[in-house]
Amino acid sequence: MHTPISSIVSDSAPRTVTFSGFVDVIRDHKKHLFFVIRDRTDMVQVFADKALFPDTHITTESFVRISGHIESRPEVRLHGFEIVATQIEILSVPEEDLPISWKSEWYPSLSERLDHRHLSLREPRILLAFEMMSYFDLVVREFCYEQGCIEIHTPKIIPAASEGGAELFRLDYFGRDAYLAQSPQLYKQMAIASGFGKVLEIAPAFRADPSFTSRHVTEITMLDIEISPIESPEDVISFAEHMLQTAFSKIHTRFASKVAELYDREITIPSLPFPRTTFTQAREILEKEFGIAIAEDEDMSAEWERRLSEWVYAQYGHDFLFVTGYPSSVRAFYTMNEASTPTISKGFDLLYRGLEVSSGAQREHRYDQLVSQIRAGGMDPAEFEHYLACFRHGMPPHGGFGFGIARLFKQLLWFETVKEVILAPRDPKRLAP
Amino acid sequence: MHTPISSIVSDSAPRTVTFSGFVDVIRDHKKHLFFVIRDRTDMVQVFADKALFPDTHITTESFVRISGHIESRPEVRLHGFEIVATQIEILSVPEEDLPISWKSEWYPSLSERLDHRHLSLREPRILLAFEMMSYFDLVVREFCYEQGCIEIHTPKIIPAASEGGAELFRLDYFGRDAYLAQSPQLYKQMAIASGFGKVLEIAPAFRADPSFTSRHVTEITMLDIEISPIESPEDVISFAEHMLQTAFSKIHTRFASKVAELYDREITIPSLPFPRTTFTQAREILEKEFGIAIAEDEDMSAEWERRLSEWVYAQYGHDFLFVTGYPSSVRAFYTMNEASTPTISKGFDLLYRGLEVSSGAQREHRYDQLVSQIRAGGMDPAEFEHYLACFRHGMPPHGGFGFGIARLFKQLLWFETVKEVILAPRDPKRLAP
Repeated sequence: MHTPISSIVSDSAPRTVTFSGFVDVIRDHKKHLFFVIRDRTDMVQVFADKALFPDTHITTESFVRISGHIESRPEVRLHGFEIVATQIEILSVPEEDLPISWKSEWYPSLSERLDHRHLSLREPRILLAFEMMSYFDLVVREFCYEQGCIEIHTPKIIPAASEGGAELFRLDYFGRDAYLAQSPQLYKQMAIASGFGKVLEIAPAFRADPSFTSRHVTEITMLDIEISPIESPEDVISFAEHMLQTAFSKIHTRFASKVAELYDREITIPSLPFPRTTFTQAREILEKEFGIAIAEDEDMSAEWERRLSEWVYAQYGHDFLFVTGYPSSVRAFYTMNEASTPTISKGFDLLYRGLEVSSGAQREHRYDQLVSQIRAGGMDPAEFEHYLACFRHGMPPHGGFGFGIARLFKQLLWFETVKEVILAPRDPKRLAP
Repeated sequence: MHTPISSIVSDSAPRTVTFSGFVDVIRDHKKHLFFVIRDRTDMVQVFADKALFPDTHITTESFVRISGHIESRPEVRLHGFEIVATQIEILSVPEEDLPISWKSEWYPSLSERLDHRHLSLREPRILLAFEMMSYFDLVVREFCYEQGCIEIHTPKIIPAASEGGAELFRLDYFGRDAYLAQSPQLYKQMAIASGFGKVLEIAPAFRADPSFTSRHVTEITMLDIEISPIESPEDVISFAEHMLQTAFSKIHTRFASKVAELYDREITIPSLPFPRTTFTQAREILEKEFGIAIAEDEDMSAEWERRLSEWVYAQYGHDFLFVTGYPSSVRAFYTMNEASTPTISKGFDLLYRGLEVSSGAQREHRYDQLVSQIRAGGMDPAEFEHYLACFRHGMPPHGGFGFGIARLFKQLLWFETVKEVILAPRDPKRLAP
């Protein structure tokens, strides 16, 4: 009954159609009215003879339903046709001037746009980003299911500060303390111990991180994957790059022309395999190419990540770079280390145009080794009782990665901050809307 | 490289295969060993000549990798073939007796099984339920995307007790109070105001509900849908029943034989349309058929829901029943009421074999009406500032529903409690694992 505008645009043969949307712009002539209707899929011009609608008062951003017939008008810049209205139904009228508009001379600030999120999300360019992320979720899931993954739902309320303790939100849980999960890591591993084989989750994760940067928020949507059995972290890296290549290729097919139109940008499909470098090699590159010296056991900084991406783009024309073999000292206790060189871990990061978008590893699946790594990290194995139990009754060798979807899309669409691609972003000061 | 056991079972032509899994059972003979390997997909029998593996000690629930050749053995009860091992690699050994086993004479209690969740989830019957729920997520998403939905990720940390205030978990958010979202309701509606058209979310929701019942936990996975524009709640009901019918049909195709094997139960595909009854008719049925009198403005109790499902099954042989037209007084403030009879709402519930699995409605999209309903509920419109803003700048008529996935699968697989189909369930006393 309600036709999406895109399907009127893709087939504009003369016929009667009914559709609905927001009034985008209005041109009021003496005897007739031109206005553009916008839905999520496209925009279309409507022509209304005022004599037919004497009592109809149309304002921008009203939500209306239109019936009319399609008439070819080569002179109409928007698609070369218009709808001659036979029925106009105004379903909802803005009751006041809009507090912000992306069409105004002064494009509203990020803060204004987040304050009036329901309006800033109407901007076609922004709405497109959310449609793309939704599609990314779907194609990633389809890829993972084809690889044999089960999607799981891990608990977000957890009993203890299991991954170190910092940056956890504390909760009043029927009179005792509980916490919000920073990642589904321990529960992904429980599923592996349970014989789920390969698992996937796209779900919120919570970080009580007080920093204000373009890449941090306190609530993120994480894509998490864990697979078993594996032989090495390369199995995980290979899964990740194939997943991304498939997703980018499908996103390109579906959205490349819209992205060109609304962002004036190209979507590049990354070629396989993605470049890889070890942490040791990365250190050499940073020193040789950029004069940056990194101390032993120092973790990668945001600036170094940008430099490495510059280098990999100059060298290979590639947007992605896997950095492998991080020092054990900068990775979580559950990461497996190289047998020959225990100071080097089997953990990796994935950089995309200068930003870390994913972190992964082969995990330590041997109970005794895991206990000694917990102790080496200055923690008490007794606090990991339920977690450690998973390793005591047969545990497949496994590994996986976590993936920040907003970071990926910030980079893909060249936004300045992840907040642009989060429905209602949260930072230490922002809790609304 | 690793073949799922199911693909060996579906094609057991003689060849060499490599696969991995947990050791399910072992029969130790003098010169040889029979054991069964179990992965998520199936089980297979392995034959090992002890002379070839003098140092290999196999124990149940070890995780092993086997290479061998398939040999037809009509006398083998499990699939009529076995794998003659040429290589056995023991990747992980249980370090102690298993604390619970579903194969033991005394089937462990729910509480024991939840305490040792990584082991109870290995039970093929239970693992199947999780695989089915994962598949349900996928086919529901595919249905929704085909209907034009965008999947959104709404914030779980919210600033205020927006839906009444009871049963909310309170959080320390950088020195001020915040809460965990009970449902994505207000943010689904924000997306509708933003022109998303139709939205979908599968995500956690949190209820600080102190009750211990077979259908309540404090953290649930909700399927939430909101669609626009609509004409009446019937548009929402129709969406829901088509979605379920499609999902059940696909689940039947994929899992009916496994469910028959492991549960000795049938999966019934519900026919369309699902039966509907108004609340008023339901009251009459309860009184007439079961002698239950319901006071004016009284909400449906769990017992009445069971009775109504008995009635609809006897009457129509149907497992589902939509109850429409609930009294306005028992529904949330954002529900639209009938114009002609404002004491009757446009809200509905969906019962499945005696249990409410979904609740939905056409929502009130008119600002003035919404404000007066907030006031009528004894609440202060000022506390709904950000929410109400969504209704002031053009709001499509809309409606939607929320859906408890664990409740659906509890009923579908005849479990006694939703906890059976939650990875790590939470109740007022249980926060672990």
